[in-house]
Formats: sequence, C-alpha cells, structure tokens
Amino acid sequence: MNDVAAQATRLAERPIPTTMRAIVKERRGPGAALLEVPVPLPGPGELLVRVRAASVCGTDLHIFRWDPWAQESFTTTPLVFGHEMGGEVVARGAGATRIEIGQLVGAETHIVDWTCYQCRTGRHNVCRNLRILGVNVPGSFAEYIVIPEVNAWPSDGLSPEVAALQEPMGNAVHAMFVEEVAGQTVAVLGCGPIGLMAVGIARLAGAARVFGTDVNPERLALARRMGADETIDAHDDVVTRLRERTDGNGVDVVLEMSGAAQAIHQGFAALTNGGRISLLGIPPGPLPVDLSREVIFKGARVYGITGRRMFETWYRTRALLDEGFDPTPIISHRLPLARFAEAFDLVASGHAAKVVLLPEEP
Amino acid sequence: MNDVAAQATRLAERPIPTTMRAIVKERRGPGAALLEVPVPLPGPGELLVRVRAASVCGTDLHIFRWDPWAQESFTTTPLVFGHEMGGEVVARGAGATRIEIGQLVGAETHIVDWTCYQCRTGRHNVCRNLRILGVNVPGSFAEYIVIPEVNAWPSDGLSPEVAALQEPMGNAVHAMFVEEVAGQTVAVLGCGPIGLMAVGIARLAGAARVFGTDVNPERLALARRMGADETIDAHDDVVTRLRERTDGNGVDVVLEMSGAAQAIHQGFAALTNGGRISLLGIPPGPLPVDLSREVIFKGARVYGITGRRMFETWYRTRALLDEGFDPTPIISHRLPLARFAEAFDLVASGHAAKVVLLPEEP
Amino acid sequence: MNDVAAQATRLAERPIPTTMRAIVKERRGPGAALLEVPVPLPGPGELLVRVRAASVCGTDLHIFRWDPWAQESFTTTPLVFGHEMGGEVVARGAGATRIEIGQLVGAETHIVDWTCYQCRTGRHNVCRNLRILGVNVPGSFAEYIVIPEVNAWPSDGLSPEVAALQEPMGNAVHAMFVEEVAGQTVAVLGCGPIGLMAVGIARLAGAARVFGTDVNPERLALARRMGADETIDAHDDVVTRLRERTDGNGVDVVLEMSGAAQAIHQGFAALTNGGRISLLGIPPGPLPVDLSREVIFKGARVYGITGRRMFETWYRTRALLDEGFDPTPIISHRLPLARFAEAFDLVASGHAAKVVLLPEEP
Amino acid sequence: MNDVAAQATRLAERPIPTTMRAIVKERRGPGAALLEVPVPLPGPGELLVRVRAASVCGTDLHIFRWDPWAQESFTTTPLVFGHEMGGEVVARGAGATRIEIGQLVGAETHIVDWTCYQCRTGRHNVCRNLRILGVNVPGSFAEYIVIPEVNAWPSDGLSPEVAALQEPMGNAVHAMFVEEVAGQTVAVLGCGPIGLMAVGIARLAGAARVFGTDVNPERLALARRMGADETIDAHDDVVTRLRERTDGNGVDVVLEMSGAAQAIHQGFAALTNGGRISLLGIPPGPLPVDLSREVIFKGARVYGITGRRMFETWYRTRALLDEGFDPTPIISHRLPLARFAEAFDLVASGHAAKVVLLPEEP
Repeated sequence: MNDVAAQATRLAERPIPTTMRAIVKERRGPGAALLEVPVPLPGPGELLVRVRAASVCGTDLHIFRWDPWAQESFTTTPLVFGHEMGGEVVARGAGATRIEIGQLVGAETHIVDWTCYQCRTGRHNVCRNLRILGVNVPGSFAEYIVIPEVNAWPSDGLSPEVAALQEPMGNAVHAMFVEEVAGQTVAVLGCGPIGLMAVGIARLAGAARVFGTDVNPERLALARRMGADETIDAHDDVVTRLRERTDGNGVDVVLEMSGAAQAIHQGFAALTNGGRISLLGIPPGPLPVDLSREVIFKGARVYGITGRRMFETWYRTRALLDEGFDPTPIISHRLPLARFAEAFDLVASGHAAKVVLLPEEP
Repeated sequence: MNDVAAQATRLAERPIPTTMRAIVKERRGPGAALLEVPVPLPGPGELLVRVRAASVCGTDLHIFRWDPWAQESFTTTPLVFGHEMGGEVVARGAGATRIEIGQLVGAETHIVDWTCYQCRTGRHNVCRNLRILGVNVPGSFAEYIVIPEVNAWPSDGLSPEVAALQEPMGNAVHAMFVEEVAGQTVAVLGCGPIGLMAVGIARLAGAARVFGTDVNPERLALARRMGADETIDAHDDVVTRLRERTDGNGVDVVLEMSGAAQAIHQGFAALTNGGRISLLGIPPGPLPVDLSREVIFKGARVYGITGRRMFETWYRTRALLDEGFDPTPIISHRLPLARFAEAFDLVASGHAAKVVLLPEEP
Repeated sequence: MNDVAAQATRLAERPIPTTMRAIVKERRGPGAALLEVPVPLPGPGELLVRVRAASVCGTDLHIFRWDPWAQESFTTTPLVFGHEMGGEVVARGAGATRIEIGQLVGAETHIVDWTCYQCRTGRHNVCRNLRILGVNVPGSFAEYIVIPEVNAWPSDGLSPEVAALQEPMGNAVHAMFVEEVAGQTVAVLGCGPIGLMAVGIARLAGAARVFGTDVNPERLALARRMGADETIDAHDDVVTRLRERTDGNGVDVVLEMSGAAQAIHQGFAALTNGGRISLLGIPPGPLPVDLSREVIFKGARVYGITGRRMFETWYRTRALLDEGFDPTPIISHRLPLARFAEAFDLVASGHAAKVVLLPEEP
Repeated sequence: MNDVAAQATRLAERPIPTTMRAIVKERRGPGAALLEVPVPLPGPGELLVRVRAASVCGTDLHIFRWDPWAQESFTTTPLVFGHEMGGEVVARGAGATRIEIGQLVGAETHIVDWTCYQCRTGRHNVCRNLRILGVNVPGSFAEYIVIPEVNAWPSDGLSPEVAALQEPMGNAVHAMFVEEVAGQTVAVLGCGPIGLMAVGIARLAGAARVFGTDVNPERLALARRMGADETIDAHDDVVTRLRERTDGNGVDVVLEMSGAAQAIHQGFAALTNGGRISLLGIPPGPLPVDLSREVIFKGARVYGITGRRMFETWYRTRALLDEGFDPTPIISHRLPLARFAEAFDLVASGHAAKVVLLPEEP
C-alpha cells in the first residue's frame, strides 16, 4: 500500500465527529462565518466525504460578496457554501455501494433530477431542476460534506487538491471539446484558473497554436507556463494580432472565459468565418451584441457552456490528467479553512490564480 | 417534348439583342431607374441567361431605399441589382460546357474565390472574398444576366419563378438542417417569405410541431397554409405559449427569421435547455443580449446562418421540391419589370409575401 | 374521463391475482408452454404492469425454435419470454413514484446497470452488463410483468398495442436518425415489421425518395401502403434499379433490416460514395464482406444499430406517433395468449407482419 | 533568403530539358523500367513540377508486382507511376497563377471532376470520376511531373521529402479525425508508414493511451519511437491485452491500417461498445465478418477511409507538422531513382518503413 493510500485509510478510519467547522452564509447579505455545525448524515444513496481540499471558485466570491447573481441564485440561508472539493468517503447511506469507504473522490457539483426531458436526453448539465452544491444544498467549505453517490467521481492516484480541480477543469474540457481542436488555432480569452487550464488542455490536445489573452501580466506569464504559444495583453489590439498570426484568416476556435464585454467582442471579431466560439465566462449583465456582423454573416457557431457533460467530461478530464496534464501550477495559494476571508480577498485581487482551502489544517 | 421544354427552346433560340431593360442603381442614394443598357457578354466559364423570373428580396429593398447596410455594402454604381432569378441559358463563354443552351437554371448568388481558407474547407458561403450578384456584380433585375457556370443550378421541371425561389428557400433549408428536425418541436419566428418556406419545410421534414410567429395576421394565415400547427401573434406572450405547448420544456429548435430584437429574445427564452437556435434574420444594429441567461446557462447552440452550403443545400432544396414542397403560395404578386417601384412598395408594406418581377412582360 | 382512461382505471383497480398465465420456456430446447405461474412482485424501484398487448418479435421466434443465437443468449430456464408490451401499472415497489397507478406504459426492454463506462457516457444501449426483458429476466408473454420504473415509458393516448410497438419502432427510429434523412434518398432493405415502420418514418421525415425491398410480395405491398415511393423484389437487380432511380449516384441512406447476406451486399453496392448505411438486421453468422470495395474505397459510414438511445429515441418515437405516424397497418394478426404456437408459426411463415398476443382474451 | 529557398530558386531557374528519366510501367505485367521519356507540358490550369523527392507507397509495389488490384485498376500503359512527391514548380500552364514559380509543393493525388454529386457535396475523395496520379495519369517517379494547379499544396518551410510525405500522412490524419481523439484510448493496428504516422499524430492530439500492433518487431520499435505508450506483437493475444489496459472497456478508437484479416477481427473485438473504427488498410479480398457480433450488437461506427478531405486534411496535416510532428524517423531509406527495383524489394521485405526515391541523384 503506498503512502497516499495508507494515509487515506487512516483518515477514513478516524472516528467521525458530531460537529465540524464550516464556512456558512448565515443570512442574505455580504460576508460569511466560520462556525461549528453538525456533521451531516448521508441519506439513501448518499456518501459522507471528509473534505481534504476545497478550492475557491469565482462563484464563491459572488456569494461571499452577495452580488446580484448571488441574490438571485443563493436561495437558502444559513448554508455551507463552496463546491470544488476532493476528499475521502467515510460513510455510506443505504444503497450506496459503488464507492468504497476510504476512496478519494471529486464531486460533480450538479445535482440533477435524472427524470426531466434534459436528463433523459443526455443533457444533465442543464437539468430543469438543477441544484448545485454550495449554492442550493450544503457545500464543501467544511470538514465534511454529503453528496449523492452518483455525483462522486473516484479519483485514486490524484492528490486531494487535483481531485478538487477536476470540477473546474471539467468546465474547460467541456468548452474545448464541443468540437475538435487538433490542428486548429485556439484563442483562450481570459486566463483565470479555467482559462489557464484550457490553455494547457489545448496544447495537450494538439492545437495548432494556442493564444492566451488577459489584462493581468501575471496571468499571461502563467498562460505561457501552461503552454500558450503566445500571449496578448487584452488592452492591446487583440484582433489584429490574432489575425496576423493566422494568415489573416482569424482563429478557428475561440474560448471566451473572462465574461468581459471587450473580450467577447474581440472573440467574435477574431474568429475565422465559419468558426466556433465557446462562451463560458459570465458577463455581469446584458451587453450590446451586433449579431449580424459578429455571428450571422460570419456563419459562426456559438456554444453556451455550463457545467460538464455527465460523465463524458469526467472520463476525458481524468484521461488528460493521466496523460500528464498538470493543473498544479495554477494553484497559487493554499490556506487553512479559517483564513477563508483572506482567500476571497486574494481571488478578488486578481493576483491569485487558484486558492485551495485545506480543512485539515488548523 | 413537353410544353415548358418547348417554350424554353423557343426562347433560347430567339436572337440575343444588344441592349436590354434593367433596373439600375445609378448613384449612391435612394431610388433606382429602369434603363436600356447593353446586354452583358459571358466571359470564360460564364453563362448568359435570359431572366424569366426575378423575385424581390428584402436586400433589394435595402438597396432601393439606400439604408445604412446598403451604404456600406453596395460599393459600385451604376449597377443592375436583384439576385433571385430563374431563366434559360442562351450563350456560353469559353470552357462553359456543363450546362446546355436552353436549360432552365437558378443561381447561387454567392460568387466565391474557390481558393481561400474558407472555400478550401467547405465553407464557401463565408468566402473571404465573397461577391454577391446584384450587390457587387451586375444582378438579375434585367432581361439578361451573366453568371459563372459553376453558380448555375440546373432546374429542369420547375417553373422559372420556382427556379428563382430556390435561392431564398435555400436559406431556409440551410438554417433548418444545421441539425436535424424530425420529431423535434420547431418555432419559426418571423413569417416573411423565408420564414414561410421554413414552416413548410419543417412540416415536410417531420417536425413534431411547427409554430409560427409574426406581427402580421396575413402572414400568420399564410403560415398556417404552409403547414404551421399553430401560429402566435408576436405581440402576445410568445414564450409562455410556446412553453405551454411543449410540456414546459421549451422548443427544441428555434429559427429566427425576423431580425427583430423582440423575436430574438423570445427565441432564446422559448428555447429548451440544451437546444439550438438558427439566426438568419438581420437585426438593424447591435442589441442588448443577456448572454449568461440567454445562451450560457441554457447550454444553447447558436448558429449564424448566411447563404447556402455550396452545393449540399441545393441538392436538398431540389429534393424537397420534388417531394412536393410547394413554395408558390407565398408568391403574392407578379409584376412586369417596369413596375419595380410598386414591387418595392409592396414588400415594404408588409402586405406582400413574395413579389416576382417578370422581365418578359412589357 | 374518456373510455380508454376509464377502462384503464377499471383494470388497474381490479384485484391482483396470485397466479397468472404465461408462456414459459421450461428447458433448454425447442418449444414453450402456457403455464400458470406466480404473479411477480415489484421490488424497490420496480413496477408491476398488467400486460394488455404483447407483440411478437423475431427474437421470440429464435427462442421458441431454440436456434444457435438462443442457445447462446437465453441463459436461464424456466423463464417467461416476450418483451414488446403495453400495459397498465397496477402496483409500485418502494421508491417508485414517478409513474402513476393506472397509467399505460410501454417498456424499454434493455435493463442496464447505469454505472458502466457505456452507461455513464450516454451509450446505455450497449451497456456492459446488459440484461434484456424476456431473454435474461422474466418477460411479457404473460398477464403481468415486473419492470424497473426507469424502463417504463408513459404512453397515455396510445392504444396498448401501439404502446407495445414503440419498442421495435424505436429500433427503426434509432437506425434512421443516426444521421439526418430529410431530402435524402433512402432504401430500406427488408420489409419485416421494423423495415415497414422505417419506410413510414422515412416518408414522414421528408426523405427524398423511399425505396423498399423484400422477397415477399405481400410485404412489398405493405411497404407501399406505409409510404414507399417504389418497391423492388429483392430477387431482381436491386442495385441497378436503385442506381437508375438516383441519377446513377446510388442512394444516400441504406437501412439494412433483413440480415440476409444478399441484401447486405446490395446495400453496400447501392450506397452512394461517402454515404451511410445502418445495419440492424442480424445475419445468422459470419459472411464474406469485401471491405475494400464495399466500405473503404466508398468512404462509407457503417453504423451498427442495436436497441434504442435511452431515452432520446423514445421521445422522438412518441413525437412521430403524435405527428400521425400510424404503425397499425403492420399488425396483421391479434391472437389470445393461448394461441402462441400459432403466432410463432405465422411469424415463421413470412405471411404475417406483426402478430400481437392479447393476454386479456381467454 | 534562406538556403532552402535559395536552392529552390536555383533549381527553378535551371533550364527545363526536353527529356527526363522516369520509371515506366511499359506493359500489363510485372516489372517496370527506367526510361528516358519526354518531359510533359503543362496544359491550362496545370503546373510542371521538378520532382525532388518521390516516396514509395504500397500501391506502387502492387503496380510493380502486377497483383490483382493493379490488373484491375491500372488501366493505361505505358505510364509513369508513383504519386507521393515534393518538388518545385518550374512552369505554369495558362490560367495557373496561384502558385509561384520556384515554390515547393506537395500533391493531392486525387484528380477529381469537381462537378459530380460527391464533389459538389464536399466528398471529393470519393469523386465518381476519380483519377489518381501514377495510376490513371502520369505519376511522380520521374524528374518532372504535371499536376493540376488545384492539386498543388504549397509546402514552404518543409523539406522535399516531408512535402512528399504529406500525402500518406494525410491518410492518417483523415482516418484519425473523422471523430475526435483527445482523451480517448487509441489502437493503431499495423505499423507501416501510415500506421506509424498515426501513432505519432494520436500522441500529439492528446490521445489517452496509444497502442500499436504489428507482426514486425522493427516496426514496433519505431512505433514506440513515434510515441506509442505500448506496443503489442500482433501474434499475441492483442484483444485481451487491449482490454486489460482499458479497465476491461476496450479501446475507444481503432485505426486499422494493416489490411490483415487477423488485425481487422482484433480491431472489432478490442473496440469498446459504442466505439469507432476507421478502416484504411486494404484487405486483399473478401473476408468473413461476423457483422452481428463485430458491428451490430456493439453499436460500432465503422468508417471507410480513402484519400484525404480536400483540403481540410491538408490544412490540418500542415498544422501538425508545424506543431512539431516529425515524420522523418519513418524514412528508412533514400535511394536514387535508378535503384527503384531495390526500393520495391525493401518495401516488400517489411524491413523498410518509408523509402524515398531522389530523382536528383544520379
């Protein structure tokens, strides 16, 4: 038994306490608190997981700051939030038999109804009755979390933090592979954590050239480290540069991962005629789009990307990790759970890439 | 030899005059004039076609009225405009040997360079050096027109006016079949000529239910005649109605053919999660789009539609005509060439569906 | 409440007996027996369904006659066989709450594990641990059957026999729509029940021309009734005829539904270069295929078709029924359960199309 | 001007002789001769190319040996054969203006009619009137060759031998990318030159694991050098090994590049349920296929692969070369044109990978 497995077993064998520390949104408004709350119990078909790593997503910052999206989407308080996580299974509810006690798992964070039109036609990620870990049901900024067994993704051989990163990496994988990329030019607009992973995945998947743009030089440096052939400051004339680098044709594949209006327009303008653009970044509200010029006369294919395909994306994500894709360079900070406020500040500052909270550390 | 073929031969055998009547945009500004101009000569690889029917497209109205689109796109004056046409080949330039003299043809109106990245990868409709009949080169509101032989589509067995209608019908066919429609619910937003043809094509192609919307009751009546299961006044609550009719799921396929901001938003809102929308109608300018809600969180696939696939769309269009699709109910008016101003007024009024100009009639 | 619904309720409210009549394969060898056996009990997540119509599939004949396929696949005796069925839910096991008591349902006959690589990537029909109703678990040639609730397909508004026919119709739908068919020429080789339904579906879905072939003139007559534009005796020169009818190009879409070596070769030969062929008919064993000529140099796409997509195919099947597709002309015989031997003889004779067994009738 | 370009210009400026050495199939039967023949003249739309490298394909060996395929396909004698080539344009026929004199080009070897159903629907590689360089029209085992300008693929920055290898590499690229491969397990059956290139391309395109099989240990060593994660002697139990290495699931993607019956059956058996197999290797004749077990019940997608997509494949091939894919390790021998018999012997022996003939060397 190797060390990781031995440690996992030890952890799994530890007695389960009745209370735990968790970051809780107590009421509708800015902020959050580290509280001692009951350890949840797994119901039928559910697993109790000891959280070993819980990474911070932009969504969590929205919830912390209580922006309009959070006001609309975060419907229940008090609630533990956070959703990206890796941890070991420590208890199983009735009928949960597929995953072993002690197994390291990541979590698909979309809890779906399995019976609606979308779920019955392979589109679980847009389930009509979608609930999301840490948004609609208790999340992973805690020592323990309960998840449906069907949402647990066995992650043997990964570290807990990489197990956690599979979820946002899955966003990048889904955005990338709605169409193929080998031998195609790819521009990733916005080099936050998902964009940075997209850069590396495009490189690994045989993209002809991979371009990264961002307003932040630190992120552009990380993009080059992840494998970007060229990075462009988003304040520069991105469109002209991308066209120059592609024989005037424009890029074959645009992955918009910033949500910034400027980047979205750059993406449409830099896209080759008849090309495709995946939209993943979330603009804060409506923005003017010149559909004639930006979409229609270009013959563009525009894909709205949300979540991951359940579970094609997870198989592919794991395969890319096994081929050697290493997401750890994008982890800029590791903090104990108690320093969550600092974690949100770091994410907000733009000077962090990925911040991971570690419930184990005091 | 049947009557149509006999007539075609007679026409083809008529001597070709040196001048002809044509509707000419003489200078950059509103209006046009019926002038006597030289009959053009076919160069190498080109055909001279005697125009038998030239239908009026919304684009022609833009050119007549000289709106901002025309000011930007219509670059050469004086120029004969018009592009939808059916007529007989009466002369062939050097090397043009595939089409016989006397053959009835329609015209693919996109003149492409065949050598750019787009053309060499099957995306001729978004050629980097696209020229369009009646916009960049002399068009079909005339007794004769020269077209490249490769753009001529043999149309034996059709009437000249249906030969002409293949071009806009091709827009509907291309918009429809970027993905399949059999057994799917389909909403056509905007029941102008292309929308009306889309309604009929969706019905013929086995759509589960076909909905049509428009602000014009006459057009809604025509949509029902073309096979719509249900029509909805676009001023009504289209989204609620469409959701009610689809078990709350929303429609599988939206074909946006109006270019109206309201319809575009109705289309996104009525689309089922993970569904697809084809955008063909040309909005007059940028409009606010809530990409998060309308595209991204829906997991929508948005297709910009322009032109036709060369020439998959033409084969399919002809097949649908041969199966019995009849576009003639949408022809509301047939006028001699000289009454072109009346034709444009009719199109502008919204009380016409398709207006066909007949160069043969004095 | 309409009559059908009223009758359903009455039936559902009837007391459930403890024993029932069923056609049982008692031992490994030819034949079967009508026996009185215990009514099965629904376990957790299962439904008890009162069978109203159980149609006979070619598979059932294989089992009855005990041919090599049955010897290999039919692993448990004694077992009730039969799998195509429509009936009302009369009892529900623990946790089965989605389908109401009294509801008419059809059954997806593939019982899958939901957890294997195939099931987790949208390919349930080729589940690694596939079990089939009436082959591996008790089937529908009986007064009652237990099925997993997830396999029950609500069929309100259909007759019980059409509810039963959704399963084989789903085979045709799946074979048809692996690629689109509108405006394409389609040849259905083999006009047994599934082929006949395929003919009608192709017609409804806007195929350019639909050809049907068979060795049996009665079936060809039925094919014409289902909407075939032309039928060809399979003993004739099918390939030459199909090429003649398609401008020498060959057909765009071949649906092989006979399993006969001759038809398979005719299908490959009649297929247009770069076309697609769906293979559904089951040849009795290996047969010589000239892959170079029949597949490779043609650039053909060959699809192996088994089962139905769960549950895209079911939605589409129902949509086609609601659009007006009527499968009842292919029901040639309706017999009480006790006359099962006669049913198998009819199917074997080739003079029946679809035979439906009716457990209700004494 | 770099050295290669300078050399190209010098070569292009050399006077064109009236006769040249060429390998000619003189009559219908085994063998060939090195003869002095007239240098061909480019007609309208054609280019005269000075051949710098002409690689040997298995097809050439068939022609040399005069096997049944050659007897059927090679219809005109005497004829220069050979088709894979890189060379500089030295003269242009009327209307050929796109490619510059002196430019290094490779050649798409399929000469198509551009007007048939297949060509007009994006399937040029299966043109109804296909002619092939070196099979139906004079080929590249010569100092000069005439090709249509549209078939010339500008290859600046490549060596002449890599320019030549783009054609067979294009076969591998086309076979690979009929569906995507990133994150998928890939087995390449048959590690001849195309198979070896496929191994390297799969590795570059982010395949999860790449397996190579062959009967020849030297080729398996080359496969590992090209990036195979694991190679398997084709005499071993390939199917069991591949299943073991894929968690029992079978491989996602099979590329059959040997044409050997054993490999074809191994490919079908090792394929995961619902997976896809590309058939490129040419079996010498019909072979028994168990379609039920090997294709139908697996829900397999089988692609017949011939030629290359014109010209999507060429763009992608060049992109992969620019990303760093290096095909030169598979060039095992470089020989002057005069030693052609030795070249064919080497290919026949199985101890060569790719043999390149160099017309320049005396």
